[in-house]
Amino acid sequence: MTKAVVLLSGGLDSATTLAIARSSGYECFALSIDYGQRHVSELAAAAKLVESVRARDHKVIAVDLSAFGGSALTDPSRVVPAEGIKPGIPVTYVPARNTIMLSLALAWAEVLGSRHIFIGVNAVDYSGYPDCRPEYITAFENMTNLATKAGIEGAKIHIHAPLMHLSKAQIIKQGASLGLDYSLTVSCYQADEAGRACGVCDSCRIRRTGFQSAQVPDPTHYQTLFP
Amino acid sequence: MTKAVVLLSGGLDSATTLAIARSSGYECFALSIDYGQRHVSELAAAAKLVESVRARDHKVIAVDLSAFGGSALTDPSRVVPAEGIKPGIPVTYVPARNTIMLSLALAWAEVLGSRHIFIGVNAVDYSGYPDCRPEYITAFENMTNLATKAGIEGAKIHIHAPLMHLSKAQIIKQGASLGLDYSLTVSCYQADEAGRACGVCDSCRIRRTGFQSAQVPDPTHYQTLFP
Repeated sequence: MTKAVVLLSGGLDSATTLAIARSSGYECFALSIDYGQRHVSELAAAAKLVESVRARDHKVIAVDLSAFGGSALTDPSRVVPAEGIKPGIPVTYVPARNTIMLSLALAWAEVLGSRHIFIGVNAVDYSGYPDCRPEYITAFENMTNLATKAGIEGAKIHIHAPLMHLSKAQIIKQGASLGLDYSLTVSCYQADEAGRACGVCDSCRIRRTGFQSAQVPDPTHYQTLFP
Repeated sequence: MTKAVVLLSGGLDSATTLAIARSSGYECFALSIDYGQRHVSELAAAAKLVESVRARDHKVIAVDLSAFGGSALTDPSRVVPAEGIKPGIPVTYVPARNTIMLSLALAWAEVLGSRHIFIGVNAVDYSGYPDCRPEYITAFENMTNLATKAGIEGAKIHIHAPLMHLSKAQIIKQGASLGLDYSLTVSCYQADEAGRACGVCDSCRIRRTGFQSAQVPDPTHYQTLFP
């Protein structure tokens, strides 16, 4: 089987990406990054998903991005917005997060001799982060082929972003068709220790609407009940 | 003053890069990465250099690249070569190291509102690492301008690599002319806890020859005496 490194946060998108990589026949090496995020229950979700989707291996690498500050996701003194999605780049944006995560995935891929990296970025129903756009992924891929031993030896590394052009409802439909258990995933920016979602942050809003549009029952564990 | 993030390993090249950035008038934010390297005395050297060169701030970010293995610099079971520089990419190559370090520098730069990152890579007297070449730096710079909030808002980020086309002797001459105290720097891949160099690894060999060619007295602390 062809090896692939799959970035796995434990959220809905990365879980679906893992399920897609597995169903496409890749031997999956899941990589989670403990970057000082508020929502550490994501990482517990990632471990459950690795077992459920039968990834070959799972590593959690710690890199404390809260040392830099600058994001509501890593800085406890900042408030996670709950009033709905606004235009522009939100305060939950973590500077250079996807670049750091892809760089770490690249390191593991190079050690494994893998030429395939999967990331669950999405440019349709997303929060307005610059590092979720197709032109960014292409630029990262170009850079990797100059950065690595594999690249020098002519082995092109591919950054797969299979969700890039899907709506949240399409993502959910695809994962459901692959038998993915979405009750294991945690998307909320401020989930509690048990992984229960707030229901009102941007990520929760996008997710809830996605399940409604997909007409798939929403298995999310919420902290409160919604009508 | 214009802010710059300067990657500072504590070695000769990054110390010279910091001195160049300071002498060019930048307010310097030095960033060191504790990536599980054998030569942790580098990090102690970095702290001394920050004080000596008067950087504004210094952060050490831990990210355990030894979890991936694949390099003699992070894997204690691998031997650091001592028999001289060979053609090809050596076992001391750390997969994706410069990409990871530049990504972390990018995160801090974005939080600081800085558009300048300095890195001491060099394509002349170097160890054959792919991520030390000018085309790699250019590709990384292109990627950052798609990755970041600043890039979206039209503020181009510059990756400065002032040593890129200098020989080791030219680097040493430039640092010496700026008053840099090279006795504070540690370049050895297997320096002891006191920061004393082995004298025989690739990095030591390049450094020793550099001081000889530059006709600058070599202030390196060696574990043994050399003729």
